[in-house]
Amino acid sequence: MYRYKKDMDYSYTLGTTITFELLNRRPKDCQVVYINPKQKKDETYQKLVGLCRDNHIKVIENNEKVFKELSDKENTMVIGVFSKFQTVLEKEKDHLVLINPSNMGNMGTIIRSAVGFSIYDLAIITPACDIYDPKVVRASMGAIFNLRFELFPSFEAYKAKYGNHHAYPFMLQATTELKNVHIEKPFSIVFGNEATGLDRSFLNEGTPLIIPHSKDIDSLNLDNAVAIGLYEFTK
Amino acid sequence: MYRYKKDMDYSYTLGTTITFELLNRRPKDCQVVYINPKQKKDETYQKLVGLCRDNHIKVIENNEKVFKELSDKENTMVIGVFSKFQTVLEKEKDHLVLINPSNMGNMGTIIRSAVGFSIYDLAIITPACDIYDPKVVRASMGAIFNLRFELFPSFEAYKAKYGNHHAYPFMLQATTELKNVHIEKPFSIVFGNEATGLDRSFLNEGTPLIIPHSKDIDSLNLDNAVAIGLYEFTK
Repeated sequence: MYRYKKDMDYSYTLGTTITFELLNRRPKDCQVVYINPKQKKDETYQKLVGLCRDNHIKVIENNEKVFKELSDKENTMVIGVFSKFQTVLEKEKDHLVLINPSNMGNMGTIIRSAVGFSIYDLAIITPACDIYDPKVVRASMGAIFNLRFELFPSFEAYKAKYGNHHAYPFMLQATTELKNVHIEKPFSIVFGNEATGLDRSFLNEGTPLIIPHSKDIDSLNLDNAVAIGLYEFTK
Repeated sequence: MYRYKKDMDYSYTLGTTITFELLNRRPKDCQVVYINPKQKKDETYQKLVGLCRDNHIKVIENNEKVFKELSDKENTMVIGVFSKFQTVLEKEKDHLVLINPSNMGNMGTIIRSAVGFSIYDLAIITPACDIYDPKVVRASMGAIFNLRFELFPSFEAYKAKYGNHHAYPFMLQATTELKNVHIEKPFSIVFGNEATGLDRSFLNEGTPLIIPHSKDIDSLNLDNAVAIGLYEFTK
């Protein structure tokens, strides 16, 4: 078992809770589950082994080396290897669109919050960080297994497929404040890259929105801005 | 110059933008500024050196070693060493209260968003991660130099000093949804630890609030929850 690289056709979960999410949400994509020899034979263990048995997933319990190779943390007890899965967005549901997201921790946290606010459809405009990376999977706390996501080479390509959505690009050049938004459904809320935001061309897309902030910061952190957008659009 | 440890009486900024925040907001606390010999003698450089000269701050330009010792990143060009400063909260302003926050990245991001929503007063209930740590300073993008913060051994100790505030504890056991809140000022919005949240005793403090989320996640990430709270309370 090799440490994750982007060109592999599998990835893995690091940790017990996240592996349960994998087993409960996408059991058919799970190839094998490693259990650390140090794992106690407790209720969690029984539940884990039972879930694997019910889904005909191989369990390997005598390979401590794989934990040293794949995990930077000392106390990882469970690793679930899964095949990279393909999903498509639902046309009538509301979408979150991330343009060129670059930070894996941010992306995972954003996925967790999106699923938390019942937005289960994520469009990613490439280039972007690798959504399958174990760092993203971990930061999502396993919410990624509950998500539909689709990659597009451009926002135009996304619109060509899902043009029925009303776009709400979040950008500092917008004049309509988020709190005053009139929401048309199905919607796409659209966020730019951590460092560069959305370029001015998005002023011509749907209804651009701003989350006003004080002059004492340059911008909100991307995942915080997305969380606020998700909250306001779904409350 | 030694790598930061909690018991030191100084800390430092890693990066140009953050050092400018230090120099602009708390010049009297800045002891010395290191400029990497690789830094170009451009406009930024001139501005930096000028600011240091105006504030009688020593500039050291020939010490490349200090960058290797203090920074994990290759491209750090400026480091500003500052004395740990003491602040007290303003009694009539609204407060953010963090109970036992443990993650330095979260704390920095929270500070950035708090300042972004013009909440400049942060109470921290210990034990807590070290607000002066360079990781917090960096995650705050320098917003920490714009913040008043005060540490307390307990929420009771905070209330004894700032009992004029109406408390809004954020907790999953609350029944009032954030979107329906009636805000009494000055307010304190109160958040618990990343893993454990607030204990049930906070159900008896002020007006407990919940940010409802789907059953597909256990909780929102702390900094996302705080960002949403800050947004709703200040919009």
